[in-house]
Amino acid sequence: MPADVTLYGAKTGNCLRVAIALEELAIAHQVVKLDLRAGEQRTPDFLSLNPSGKVPVLRVRSSAAPPLVLAQSNAILLYLARRAGGRLLPPETDASAPFALERFFFFVTDVIAPSHAAFFLKNKGCEEGQRLMERRSLEMLLASERFLQNAPFMAGQSFTLADIAAVSIVAAQSPSIDWARYPQLQRWFAAVMARPSIERGMIAFD
Amino acid sequence: MPADVTLYGAKTGNCLRVAIALEELAIAHQVVKLDLRAGEQRTPDFLSLNPSGKVPVLRVRSSAAPPLVLAQSNAILLYLARRAGGRLLPPETDASAPFALERFFFFVTDVIAPSHAAFFLKNKGCEEGQRLMERRSLEMLLASERFLQNAPFMAGQSFTLADIAAVSIVAAQSPSIDWARYPQLQRWFAAVMARPSIERGMIAFD
Repeated sequence: MPADVTLYGAKTGNCLRVAIALEELAIAHQVVKLDLRAGEQRTPDFLSLNPSGKVPVLRVRSSAAPPLVLAQSNAILLYLARRAGGRLLPPETDASAPFALERFFFFVTDVIAPSHAAFFLKNKGCEEGQRLMERRSLEMLLASERFLQNAPFMAGQSFTLADIAAVSIVAAQSPSIDWARYPQLQRWFAAVMARPSIERGMIAFD
Repeated sequence: MPADVTLYGAKTGNCLRVAIALEELAIAHQVVKLDLRAGEQRTPDFLSLNPSGKVPVLRVRSSAAPPLVLAQSNAILLYLARRAGGRLLPPETDASAPFALERFFFFVTDVIAPSHAAFFLKNKGCEEGQRLMERRSLEMLLASERFLQNAPFMAGQSFTLADIAAVSIVAAQSPSIDWARYPQLQRWFAAVMARPSIERGMIAFD
């Protein structure tokens, strides 16, 4: 019996990245949309899945074991990549595997985390801090132009978790990017956005 | 011939976590200390190792292949954990492996990243933003008290990368913690700090 996979989420970057990974790996799954403004992440039912009241959450049910319930989008991405045996990350025996992780974490900690900080500061009414963190996130993102000078993807010859980490934040920042100055990023973004899995993942919560 | 392992770094949380992992895994290594205030991370020699001019960098030389040069502290931690075959993270076949990753990423993205944002804002002179991000980091850190209610370590029965991710930031925040209100965290911190590997890792760049 195939596993029964459910993604709980909303239209946020963290949730979109998980939706994209599921599509990219062609893992059959259901999507449960939560209305965050209505506080659906704070219902007793959802808190019993994730006591921190955050999305995304992935639930994997199989006949063999208790369900796996996993929060933290990046942990879910690594779990899915491992389960897929070398797709989205090179196999661990491959010399390029650590490098793909390096590029993945570049986007997670140097680009996405400052963007999250900006969002947090915005909600606290700290406009100066918001502006500084948004600028930082964009500046680091644009530094990825050099990753693409001699490679089709962010970590080399294959599409990996590094591209998934990058794509939703590039899409979100797209209006702020002076594309003519970043031809490699532009070429990469067009190619990646044309992947059917990404087209489907990007609208998972619409 | 054993690999020749060198850690380039300075006394920052990111570097200390890597030093602790090397000690915990008993991997023989040299430490090269960089004086960040003197700009030693911007010398041509160091930029040839890591073009982004950041520490830590791990270099692993072996007779069999070109050296592995890896930046991004979290990528280094995952690389070391994988190389150690199940120490610091449960083996991938273990049902608890995804959960340990979840807890690891909690500290990386929800506790350490806001602390990095606070440091960045401090350097930009944005005191309000700094204060908000410091408070956020501490608030999330203290939420880990519940991880320890029924377990000796952050991800359950074993010491994992989640504990390594946690320990340097708890040490740094220690003066701000009202320890009497967080007995589990206090018990965990005392136990973890008493590990010889952590004692050694914490002074790797002194």
